[in-house]
Amino acid sequence: MKKLILNSNIHNYEVKFKNDLEFINKLIDIKKKVFIIDKNIYNLYKQYFTKIQENRLYIFDAIEEKKTLESVQNMYKFLAKFDEKRNITLISIGGGITQDVTGFVASTLYRGIHWIFIPTTFLAQADSSIGSKTSLNFETYKNILGGFYPPNTIYIAPIFLKTLTKKDFFSGIGEVIKFALLEESYPKKIDSIIKTIEDLKNDKNILKTIFNTMKIKKAYIDEDEFDIGKRNLFNYGHCFGHALENSSSYKIPHGIAVTIGMIFANIISFNRGLISKNIFNKLNKKLFLPNIPIKLKDTYFNPKVLLESMKNDKKRIGKDLTIIIPIDNDIRATKIDNLTFEEFNKTLDELIKILGLK
Amino acid sequence: MKKLILNSNIHNYEVKFKNDLEFINKLIDIKKKVFIIDKNIYNLYKQYFTKIQENRLYIFDAIEEKKTLESVQNMYKFLAKFDEKRNITLISIGGGITQDVTGFVASTLYRGIHWIFIPTTFLAQADSSIGSKTSLNFETYKNILGGFYPPNTIYIAPIFLKTLTKKDFFSGIGEVIKFALLEESYPKKIDSIIKTIEDLKNDKNILKTIFNTMKIKKAYIDEDEFDIGKRNLFNYGHCFGHALENSSSYKIPHGIAVTIGMIFANIISFNRGLISKNIFNKLNKKLFLPNIPIKLKDTYFNPKVLLESMKNDKKRIGKDLTIIIPIDNDIRATKIDNLTFEEFNKTLDELIKILGLK
Repeated sequence: MKKLILNSNIHNYEVKFKNDLEFINKLIDIKKKVFIIDKNIYNLYKQYFTKIQENRLYIFDAIEEKKTLESVQNMYKFLAKFDEKRNITLISIGGGITQDVTGFVASTLYRGIHWIFIPTTFLAQADSSIGSKTSLNFETYKNILGGFYPPNTIYIAPIFLKTLTKKDFFSGIGEVIKFALLEESYPKKIDSIIKTIEDLKNDKNILKTIFNTMKIKKAYIDEDEFDIGKRNLFNYGHCFGHALENSSSYKIPHGIAVTIGMIFANIISFNRGLISKNIFNKLNKKLFLPNIPIKLKDTYFNPKVLLESMKNDKKRIGKDLTIIIPIDNDIRATKIDNLTFEEFNKTLDELIKILGLK
Repeated sequence: MKKLILNSNIHNYEVKFKNDLEFINKLIDIKKKVFIIDKNIYNLYKQYFTKIQENRLYIFDAIEEKKTLESVQNMYKFLAKFDEKRNITLISIGGGITQDVTGFVASTLYRGIHWIFIPTTFLAQADSSIGSKTSLNFETYKNILGGFYPPNTIYIAPIFLKTLTKKDFFSGIGEVIKFALLEESYPKKIDSIIKTIEDLKNDKNILKTIFNTMKIKKAYIDEDEFDIGKRNLFNYGHCFGHALENSSSYKIPHGIAVTIGMIFANIISFNRGLISKNIFNKLNKKLFLPNIPIKLKDTYFNPKVLLESMKNDKKRIGKDLTIIIPIDNDIRATKIDNLTFEEFNKTLDELIKILGLK
């Protein structure tokens, strides 16, 4: 089966693609290992985990409220008690939250331990598992803590996606759309992206789409792992998306918030004359709006709360807001640092209309 | 004045050498900066810090008990409230503890912020300021947390050393001896090392010795920043030294513990027939014993406590203990993983005799 090798300043790493879960037995055979497994995944796939020794298994309730230093400290306690130290292997299984927390642990315990990660959500498989980022929330600030530390090996097993809720599956779709729109050799292929997404929703070409999405992302992170240049563009949809996740108390899953965030960014581009009406409307109608399969409440769109969140974006550099917007009909993206509070409010009004909430 | 450029997988960085403290005024002029300053240094050098805006100054009580995630969290709180996010500059001033804690903060906030470090102890100036390591204690475990993240710029101003206690100055001497003994092109120059140390104690050639020590260290870390190969050898004197710091409740400063740790390691080498009696005795008599200027209590040498600490060494890989020992009369060092508990106890007995405690 296909493999992908990722370059990293920390250590190079490998993505392996698997059609079944047989490989988990081999991981259980590793001697100096511990497993940290998302509680839901543990319950759903229990039969694969029965052979793990009880004292080497940690079940993690992977919810947004647990993406904290407190969870990290509980894991340190669990890991520190073993005789093996720097040569312990941490195997974590779950979605983005599990990755964020266990990645932080792996990178900060004994200055970095061997880490195998098995993403179980579409979002984590297609996107977040590569790219080295770890993150934690701190007090009211989302994702402000974290660093760069990739797993040593990532196993992609799309079989896990069968038990995802529709909402969580669509969360992955948001990022797949984003990467397709950001692809460097962007060939004006909106129609082909629309088809890819339709296929996904019909359970077709999932592994292929994950592989292709990773390849697009790899082209950026190979050059800019530490996010000081072009990798910034991955934040397309995120500057507003993060704020919306927060203002909805995480009722809106990440990828869907990103989809709405892309609409928000496109409104700014359109109003500044940077993308055409035709493209703007087509993206909304064919790609974004059909992929928001949850009921949005207007309380999620409180301008004050959203603005306050945007102000705390870690990429912000001045008194105005920072956001990534598309700048032409090829959807080439760019970062702007001059989104004023007035323009923010006006854009939010238009977004609410486009979403049919007013 | 001389400069040193260090290579790093994270970001390259620079060491600048300064004869006075004029440069601090220039740092105060940086707009988006905050200062975190060791309390003692702040009180001793107050006149240099008066122009720092009050809300951008954090005084840190840099004691071993504060090398914790709790201190880190207090600093996150202090830093997160500023409007500037990822582009904030953290300037920290103090010794190794200040470096360890602020380095952890700099590396984990916003996935890494700009960090300027001004070491104020001999130990931090000659050794720990370069090499990218950060560390924290966790519960009863010393230094088990941390990662790799160098400052962007380091300023070495030996003028700070004038206010060091004798005990703290000698703490630096321990590491200077270690690096001199580990120098790769080791020219059997024990006599010249003895002279260097005598000069230091007479206030001579301090800047030159700091520069030379850094150059020896650079040769190792340029090749092995992440401590997966030859950099391990820096732990000469440390495997036992860390345990001793712990068992003395940090009454023995780091560098002095390292000096005693080198005696401990040499006893093992000597008993295994790996260094000659002549070298073994000369090192003890001329380099190690004259540089332990504190009263040692026999309670610091409790075998049970020390053994328990050695077991928690993060470099340990099996059931026996791991330690770095010199392996021939050139003091070429090597790592061994087969120090049994019996050999540990026997070595400890001999050490206590050599130190004149029995």
